[in-house]
Amino acid sequence: MAMKYEVLVEVSLREGIADPQGATIERSLPALGFESIESVRVGKAIRFRIQADDASSAKSTVQQVCERLLANPVIEDTAITITEATTGDAK
Amino acid sequence: MAMKYEVLVEVSLREGIADPQGATIERSLPALGFESIESVRVGKAIRFRIQADDASSAKSTVQQVCERLLANPVIEDTAITITEATTGDAK
Repeated sequence: MAMKYEVLVEVSLREGIADPQGATIERSLPALGFESIESVRVGKAIRFRIQADDASSAKSTVQQVCERLLANPVIEDTAITITEATTGDAK
Repeated sequence: MAMKYEVLVEVSLREGIADPQGATIERSLPALGFESIESVRVGKAIRFRIQADDASSAKSTVQQVCERLLANPVIEDTAITITEATTGDAK
């Protein structure tokens, strides 16, 4: 029987790739009184539900989705987290 | 002595707020052969390092940063994860 899984894909810029969004946040912080924060990097957190036979087949599908659609492997890394969906129903 | 913590802030659109980026990904998937994915939502994953006396003071500072800069509480939720930095040095 097919199972439902909750997936989180964190897409982050690879080390050494410029992150202007993160740099802008970092520059703004001292003006707001936050002096103790550094190395700000902004990535994407993509969440969805997937139906698959088991966790390993879900993971392999998610890896393909990352490569083909969600991330640009030249400049981005992905981290995949898969958990069994708590409720049985789909939506 | 001040400690360093690694912080992950996941900023996601609140339930009911339209997510055109997620909808576009979801519509593209069947054309690529992925039929089993639904409820795609795209948020931000913001990572940084913070120096603080302890984890609870780090968390309270991060909550303020979220409210004042990283998220719009009218349409966005935030989830904060704090872990002790593994290496002692800052950069």
